[in-house]
Amino acid sequence: MTVKTIQVAQSVLSANREIAERNRAKLDAAGIVAVNLMASPGAGKTSLIERTIEGVEGQLRIGMINSDTSAAAMDAERAERAGAVSVHLNTAGRCHLDAGMVRDAMDCLPLRDIDLLLIENIGNLVCPVSWQLGSHWNVLIGSTPEGDDKPYKYPRMYSGVDVLVINKTDLLPFLSFDIDYFTRGVRALNHGLRTIPLSCRSRVGLEEWFEWIESIAVRRTAVAQ
Amino acid sequence: MTVKTIQVAQSVLSANREIAERNRAKLDAAGIVAVNLMASPGAGKTSLIERTIEGVEGQLRIGMINSDTSAAAMDAERAERAGAVSVHLNTAGRCHLDAGMVRDAMDCLPLRDIDLLLIENIGNLVCPVSWQLGSHWNVLIGSTPEGDDKPYKYPRMYSGVDVLVINKTDLLPFLSFDIDYFTRGVRALNHGLRTIPLSCRSRVGLEEWFEWIESIAVRRTAVAQ
Repeated sequence: MTVKTIQVAQSVLSANREIAERNRAKLDAAGIVAVNLMASPGAGKTSLIERTIEGVEGQLRIGMINSDTSAAAMDAERAERAGAVSVHLNTAGRCHLDAGMVRDAMDCLPLRDIDLLLIENIGNLVCPVSWQLGSHWNVLIGSTPEGDDKPYKYPRMYSGVDVLVINKTDLLPFLSFDIDYFTRGVRALNHGLRTIPLSCRSRVGLEEWFEWIESIAVRRTAVAQ
Repeated sequence: MTVKTIQVAQSVLSANREIAERNRAKLDAAGIVAVNLMASPGAGKTSLIERTIEGVEGQLRIGMINSDTSAAAMDAERAERAGAVSVHLNTAGRCHLDAGMVRDAMDCLPLRDIDLLLIENIGNLVCPVSWQLGSHWNVLIGSTPEGDDKPYKYPRMYSGVDVLVINKTDLLPFLSFDIDYFTRGVRALNHGLRTIPLSCRSRVGLEEWFEWIESIAVRRTAVAQ
């Protein structure tokens, strides 16, 4: 039975990849850069999205796909209040987004009015990285209270991302978080990974994140022209 | 294809339930109480296990099944150092334990020498609660830095547990965590849920956890006699 499950999973992953490619083509045609934000529950995905919407206001028009395992649309409402066009995706208990869900959500968004699409994945450090969505960038948001051993314990996630944000640096004085140990673990898995430590609460470090966000959106706009 | 996947998932869940029932019978025959510990990555499962082993030393003999999505056996080694008999389970990327994994791990443990079996699930707030393992108690470890909205966002997990530990209460002065809002969310899903706030770091609140652990082990021993 295990073998059978794996076969189905592989065919599902392969079908997913095809849909992801179509999503990417649609995004490219609309001149949209899409970022897949992955993290543990409570690492600060929605807070970072709120800060991002404020930080790039007037420069980039942001669209949001926000996901939850239930009907709770709180995060989408937070993003809407902050000024983004937002769609809430209920995965009905599934632990990650897939390309078909993103395709359906994109159909509900005014793509012509969006420069940057932020896709908030389900809070989970295991499964989301296996599912391509069609996004251009994979970002992992770690947080200091999760502990310095996370790269060692969730290696596939840390290996599979383009940028690592370390949130909640304001809590470092109150934690036993060994930055050298954490960094060694990250480097062994993903050498040269761009790492941005920040605090959504104190706002320290957010400028570097905004710069990166603006650089990817500007770069693509330049390529598209 | 979605329908096909769901059918396989259901037959796998049904097969899992049968194995879980056999696990439970084996535990009961050996006079062992088993606790399934579930949490987000970094909420403090391993820290609570270390404290528990110290806290009930000389009163209960503890066995541990420790899981990770990779070959990193760090948590099992932490538990061994603290004095438990421990088995490390590598789920090879899977995001939850199932009953078959627990059955295989139990085969590696000296069941006659164990009173309390602590099963550390994969760090994940979505999937683990759907998979029966044969354990007697489901415990969720929440942590204050995860935020006060978690019951609203992961309702199945909060609905499906017997005890809720809230770890990292020492960080409360540095967080925006509204205890009333959190508690209302928990109550709406799981009225009367036993909730134990504590800090593995400062050790405040651990006594109530030890008392609960001792009460379930004593109760079963009394029944078995």
